[in-house]
Amino acid sequence: MEAAGQPLHSIVEGLFTEFSPRRGLGKVADYIPALAKVDAQQFGVAVQPLEGECLCFGDAEVRFSIQSISKLFAFTMAFAERGEHVWERLGKEPSGTSFNSLFQLEAENGVPRNPFINAGAMVITDMLLDDFDDPMFELLALLHQLTGCDTIDYDEEVYRSELAYGSRNAALCYLMKSFGNIHHSVRRVLDLYFMQCSVRMSCRELAQSVQFLARHGVNPLSGKEFLTPSQTKRTNALMLTTGLYNEAGDFAFRVGIPAKSGVGGGIVGLIPDQLTVTTWSPGLNALGNSQLGIDFLEEFTTRTGLSIF
Amino acid sequence: MEAAGQPLHSIVEGLFTEFSPRRGLGKVADYIPALAKVDAQQFGVAVQPLEGECLCFGDAEVRFSIQSISKLFAFTMAFAERGEHVWERLGKEPSGTSFNSLFQLEAENGVPRNPFINAGAMVITDMLLDDFDDPMFELLALLHQLTGCDTIDYDEEVYRSELAYGSRNAALCYLMKSFGNIHHSVRRVLDLYFMQCSVRMSCRELAQSVQFLARHGVNPLSGKEFLTPSQTKRTNALMLTTGLYNEAGDFAFRVGIPAKSGVGGGIVGLIPDQLTVTTWSPGLNALGNSQLGIDFLEEFTTRTGLSIF
Amino acid sequence: MEAAGQPLHSIVEGLFTEFSPRRGLGKVADYIPALAKVDAQQFGVAVQPLEGECLCFGDAEVRFSIQSISKLFAFTMAFAERGEHVWERLGKEPSGTSFNSLFQLEAENGVPRNPFINAGAMVITDMLLDDFDDPMFELLALLHQLTGCDTIDYDEEVYRSELAYGSRNAALCYLMKSFGNIHHSVRRVLDLYFMQCSVRMSCRELAQSVQFLARHGVNPLSGKEFLTPSQTKRTNALMLTTGLYNEAGDFAFRVGIPAKSGVGGGIVGLIPDQLTVTTWSPGLNALGNSQLGIDFLEEFTTRTGLSIF
Amino acid sequence: MEAAGQPLHSIVEGLFTEFSPRRGLGKVADYIPALAKVDAQQFGVAVQPLEGECLCFGDAEVRFSIQSISKLFAFTMAFAERGEHVWERLGKEPSGTSFNSLFQLEAENGVPRNPFINAGAMVITDMLLDDFDDPMFELLALLHQLTGCDTIDYDEEVYRSELAYGSRNAALCYLMKSFGNIHHSVRRVLDLYFMQCSVRMSCRELAQSVQFLARHGVNPLSGKEFLTPSQTKRTNALMLTTGLYNEAGDFAFRVGIPAKSGVGGGIVGLIPDQLTVTTWSPGLNALGNSQLGIDFLEEFTTRTGLSIF
Repeated sequence: MEAAGQPLHSIVEGLFTEFSPRRGLGKVADYIPALAKVDAQQFGVAVQPLEGECLCFGDAEVRFSIQSISKLFAFTMAFAERGEHVWERLGKEPSGTSFNSLFQLEAENGVPRNPFINAGAMVITDMLLDDFDDPMFELLALLHQLTGCDTIDYDEEVYRSELAYGSRNAALCYLMKSFGNIHHSVRRVLDLYFMQCSVRMSCRELAQSVQFLARHGVNPLSGKEFLTPSQTKRTNALMLTTGLYNEAGDFAFRVGIPAKSGVGGGIVGLIPDQLTVTTWSPGLNALGNSQLGIDFLEEFTTRTGLSIF
Repeated sequence: MEAAGQPLHSIVEGLFTEFSPRRGLGKVADYIPALAKVDAQQFGVAVQPLEGECLCFGDAEVRFSIQSISKLFAFTMAFAERGEHVWERLGKEPSGTSFNSLFQLEAENGVPRNPFINAGAMVITDMLLDDFDDPMFELLALLHQLTGCDTIDYDEEVYRSELAYGSRNAALCYLMKSFGNIHHSVRRVLDLYFMQCSVRMSCRELAQSVQFLARHGVNPLSGKEFLTPSQTKRTNALMLTTGLYNEAGDFAFRVGIPAKSGVGGGIVGLIPDQLTVTTWSPGLNALGNSQLGIDFLEEFTTRTGLSIF
Repeated sequence: MEAAGQPLHSIVEGLFTEFSPRRGLGKVADYIPALAKVDAQQFGVAVQPLEGECLCFGDAEVRFSIQSISKLFAFTMAFAERGEHVWERLGKEPSGTSFNSLFQLEAENGVPRNPFINAGAMVITDMLLDDFDDPMFELLALLHQLTGCDTIDYDEEVYRSELAYGSRNAALCYLMKSFGNIHHSVRRVLDLYFMQCSVRMSCRELAQSVQFLARHGVNPLSGKEFLTPSQTKRTNALMLTTGLYNEAGDFAFRVGIPAKSGVGGGIVGLIPDQLTVTTWSPGLNALGNSQLGIDFLEEFTTRTGLSIF
Repeated sequence: MEAAGQPLHSIVEGLFTEFSPRRGLGKVADYIPALAKVDAQQFGVAVQPLEGECLCFGDAEVRFSIQSISKLFAFTMAFAERGEHVWERLGKEPSGTSFNSLFQLEAENGVPRNPFINAGAMVITDMLLDDFDDPMFELLALLHQLTGCDTIDYDEEVYRSELAYGSRNAALCYLMKSFGNIHHSVRRVLDLYFMQCSVRMSCRELAQSVQFLARHGVNPLSGKEFLTPSQTKRTNALMLTTGLYNEAGDFAFRVGIPAKSGVGGGIVGLIPDQLTVTTWSPGLNALGNSQLGIDFLEEFTTRTGLSIF
């Protein structure tokens, strides 16, 4: 694949070399011990064009905690299952405030702004508990199908650690339950929610796993349609407006592609009909997104000229 | 131009015929007498492909009050003039709350969320008062250049009416002044702000006026670059995430194109490298955007298959 | 005792006769089944002067769920134990918003406004878990000492019912825990909190139990000082400014005495050096306070001319 | 007069001597130049018992800017004129947030919490513009009657300075106007409001001027009833719950008397049937109240044992 008149490979390689000295930028998430001990110097980039090899650099094969990127998979599972009915219990608007804020949730009667903030993901989790006998098994099965790799699993230590330090998420979940927007027990919802967050995947695997979003909903490995073209388009729009918490507007402005981030330091993004991309650098900026990742992606879309706008 | 294997003209014509019976949907803005008396039955659509004639239907040649669509032109003027320095005094994030809310503005020390909410547009207006001797003359001159039509002007009656009923906007402006984020007198800022809002243009003129945003910043009539390609891309991203007040997420989800709306009932949107489009129907939904316009645009992107995602 | 030149007994009797036809005013709390089934027609008044018999009318001997009135006893226990140190983890200001709002609690980093809103009472409960081996035993023992009646106990059914429907209170407690302002497990805190709320007492018993607040801290039955004169004065001031949730200002304006209310429909108040008074009528106004109770107390202070102002 | 077995004079004198070395405590209000230049070392105390001489210490005869203490006089004028009808446009509850916050005002549709925060005082001012031909003349006339001193006037420089720096107050006023809760022009309301704030009085004059609040509404100089006994009682209750902005709860807890403060550093308080008291020290605490004044008053009520609780 070419971009701006050059082979994509050499552009990405050049950028990776350029950004490598900035490894360690930002502050590693430390709200749970299991995340705090991650080596901040790690940096991986994977670019998967629609055709051809995955371009992998640095720690692109190292698995890390995908954290909130899991919200994307959980949401698409519920969206595929329920269609537009998912919107009966949550919204599609940017949150405007911190990703784990209770204020907005209280003011809006327990209806979360979108599926990519914590509260919204819990409502999705609550739906999955209705829709599947063993939703965690299904989620992992989905990831196996999307990546062709069946060793993807969640990290028991991170999961336990999240549960132990999950007071604020428990507050969010109980608040929604008080409004009747959580149907299962808070304990069950949090359990599944934290399990999802603690899934480990590599940049390469993540870039592969979202190929369907760049291909109108079709998983290229199986040839099967996971989402309809319309659902795919809409999921991408949702990622653009809400995928990076309350930095979504700035990210759209600077980078201009649908993406989803996690506090593990990963960011997965895509340009429809062109490519998918993942960056991983554990250091976060003040808004909880990977600082080096955002800087890299801004330069990546600038140099390649690839953009949805 | 073709889309989904059909001539664009016949798709748009078909859609217009289909939506025409729904004229009068929604509630005309009535906060000032001059707007309240507009005939709710009017409905116009203009689609301007990059090549070829403008496709005009219904009341596409009737001028109406562009209201907040003027924020787009004021912003691009300031952005062209100051570049990234505009962000020193306002943000790029969706607001999450009502377009004229003081709450967020107070909590965030008088720094508006983005240039497309009222408070942000006032900061832009304050900048224009610094940058130009006669900013209203310059704004009209810009609209004349972009449309090739030099009779575009503001409506004196609407302007006076806005001033007379502008208590909430005065509150916003004084609040920002108390934080030092308005440099000129509140009276001067409101004066210019309301003048901008009361500009009258037709669907055809609006579709022509934003062609530069679909053409990497170049005004096709003059061949001159108004914004750089990078600034153009970024302006489009900003429109997508914040152009429809706190309905931006839902609009991105349903319609999926950069757009800007006004309480006069107009919506102007675009698909880069493809076309620009304007709809006008004065009836608004509960969030202050043209109800028929949004419904039409959703179906327009669905039928044509044109989308940025 | 005389007031306004008449025997207190005849004033209170007259008032009770006058207000009796309005029994059933307001809306009985229905957030838990155990409270919803209370007979709304019940109405009791007990006035206990410093000297002489308790003046009892209507259902003054019927025990009811004291609910938030328990916050007064829990607070005084902690205040007696810790003195001014109690203020290290909560405030003394009126809340200004609803008694179970999370918004303020989040904005103020998990520090509740005062000990008489739910969140503040949970912090007090958390302190009692540190200060006593069996705090519920101690609380009941205190009530036995203050009233001379050792059959006062909590209601098992109400307690279980509160626990089962306590999602919003769990949200409050987890939110404070996330800020580090709850030291024990949320489960233990809620358990003790709901047990306190479900204590049952009669108007006569309540009027007796707060005599120490009208007597500079001394329990007249034992002659022992429970609070110092300064602590007593301060507790009374706190009741006046925060004892009736966000109706405290209006109550102070209309009635003008330190008081504490509960959603069971009880209100206990006092005039230092003069008397204590309890009303009970299960119907609540929109702000969660007994409607007939407030109306009665306003007329009571007006007719007797007794007031702290 | 005696208190705690000693002559009141010697208690106050002792306290004044004790607190004098702490002159200069806190931070002088500097939001307008005319206030910023006040000598921070000034300290005055005036205690006026119901019978006998006024006890004056330090700078008790020096006039200073009474600022928000004027809200008490404006309110009582409107209350005397309109009775309970004043409550049709404002509340009686503590504000819970900063005295000049727009957030609450917006959330509560332009109805201020109480007459002692800025927004509430502006509504009162708006009422006075209806009730009197020349309300400033009437306010000064009232102060002359209450003090027996007809040289009390407002300070032209402070008034001009307030107007010039009044953006936040203009924002509050325009916001209320947008809700229809200001009837006159914002300009006229602010003009009268700032004139009231810039009245200058001494501690001695202030202590005399509120004697009617300690005497069931009767001005002792004229023998005339200015407020009814019931209105007086209610005004005192309002001062207790809302007189010190969002420090009202703490002040009630520590000092325990109805009082009103101003950013000029004055505090005026009273104990019904006993005395009135004024302190003046320009240094403010973080909440905008005189720091030395509050400390002095706490000790004053502690030593004398005088309290309403």
